[in-house]
Amino acid sequence: MNALAGKLEIDTSLVRKILVEFLGQEIGKVGLSRAVVGLSGGIDSALSCYLAVEALGAQNVLAIRMPYRASSPDSLEHAQLVIDALGVPHDTVDITPMVEPLFERYPARSVTQNRKGNVMARERMIILYDQSAAWHGLVVGTSNKTELLLGYGTLFGDMASAVNPLGDLYKTQIRQLAAAVGVPQPIMDKPPSADLWAGQTDEGEMGLIYEQVDRLLYLIVDERYSLDEAVKAGFAREYVERVWKMVRVNSFKRRLPLIAKVSTRTIGVDFRYLRDWGV
Amino acid sequence: MNALAGKLEIDTSLVRKILVEFLGQEIGKVGLSRAVVGLSGGIDSALSCYLAVEALGAQNVLAIRMPYRASSPDSLEHAQLVIDALGVPHDTVDITPMVEPLFERYPARSVTQNRKGNVMARERMIILYDQSAAWHGLVVGTSNKTELLLGYGTLFGDMASAVNPLGDLYKTQIRQLAAAVGVPQPIMDKPPSADLWAGQTDEGEMGLIYEQVDRLLYLIVDERYSLDEAVKAGFAREYVERVWKMVRVNSFKRRLPLIAKVSTRTIGVDFRYLRDWGV
Repeated sequence: MNALAGKLEIDTSLVRKILVEFLGQEIGKVGLSRAVVGLSGGIDSALSCYLAVEALGAQNVLAIRMPYRASSPDSLEHAQLVIDALGVPHDTVDITPMVEPLFERYPARSVTQNRKGNVMARERMIILYDQSAAWHGLVVGTSNKTELLLGYGTLFGDMASAVNPLGDLYKTQIRQLAAAVGVPQPIMDKPPSADLWAGQTDEGEMGLIYEQVDRLLYLIVDERYSLDEAVKAGFAREYVERVWKMVRVNSFKRRLPLIAKVSTRTIGVDFRYLRDWGV
Repeated sequence: MNALAGKLEIDTSLVRKILVEFLGQEIGKVGLSRAVVGLSGGIDSALSCYLAVEALGAQNVLAIRMPYRASSPDSLEHAQLVIDALGVPHDTVDITPMVEPLFERYPARSVTQNRKGNVMARERMIILYDQSAAWHGLVVGTSNKTELLLGYGTLFGDMASAVNPLGDLYKTQIRQLAAAVGVPQPIMDKPPSADLWAGQTDEGEMGLIYEQVDRLLYLIVDERYSLDEAVKAGFAREYVERVWKMVRVNSFKRRLPLIAKVSTRTIGVDFRYLRDWGV
């Protein structure tokens, strides 16, 4: 499979230029010149923040840290490295008092880690969008292509944003670009984690290695390989089927709410943005 | 303009049948047989609840009331009328302790009614989605076509759902269907309101009358009239331009987060649900 690895290599200076222009243009189109980024302490949000600063200037990017009481102190420190390196305005909002009243309403054992994680991700969305209104800036997304395809994220939570510079880059490509823009080394070196509990890692939780799953997703999604062709390319059939099932099962996270069609022109079906814009 | 009014009349028994089948089928497709509906006390969520009960049976629809301390007591009572009429399992979650810590963090004068309203709508989304996981049911949407087109709603708040039976019905059509399914009269009779403050009404806030704006939207969206043709049909040019501007400016609420395209196959652009499903 090593022969395929090269396909995921990106021209970091070209991609960087495209993404910086994308942010400047799309935010400018709606008459704004500012952005809001939630800094988790991880590589994705750090990279989004670097790109937003390059597009808009440091003074126009509001970075917000939103720890929960069980969050790792490392996360806060790593986010601080980005804030210090870029010199952006910043705020820290503890989400604990906002989410605990909901957790406490239900029997403790019934509120699974998964439910808690989703509530926290959505609470952070609330804060980012509220500050988007106060700061007159757009919320910049931090979900990468691997997460979006595998559904490893919270719908209307971390998956929610106005503009997402990272959504077409696999995790392994994020790493290349983050290195190129100079994301601080401690952030580059640590294992990716949603930081919902101590010791959690993305790869441990999903039972997947990014290096490997990115190569497979690239073949199926970008190169339009069939599952059989992916197996012939060297991936175990069971693995291919498991990954593809994740992509399919989580497709609801990549689409708009499903509207029942009863008219000749339905939102999200035959009435959409751009294509229908005569004026 | 009276001649046009007839166009918005719907065959309520046919539409009712389509929407009930839609809910049963779409919820069944993901292997579930239950639904969660947030009951505001208004006509839209009441209708969604009636349709969900018809599709799934009363015991499979969890109705949740989510008052804020400033909400009208009438809202709670009207939601209770629906609960009593349908005999659905229900819960009441006060969002006050969850949203106040955020409001209190910022100077009181800076947190506008609009910001508060968005935070509240999103907090309710969090609760509905959390209960969606606990109850193993899909969140049923309550946004109608008028609201979705005019952007009168909160992105990732009340506009968020898994399946929305009402999104292709204008407000005036909602009223016809709600009367047909037997939504309680006090809910039918009261002026539509987001209930963010005492005396608020949709029509007062938007400066529009549903009867009139629905006729205009129907011409432009469903009948594909140009703005000039709408003026010729009897609407004031200023009115037509104001309404169409609302539709355009709020288009971001009807689309997925915008992803910067850097690959051959980008989520939301050339990688989408269904069309791409070979397996």
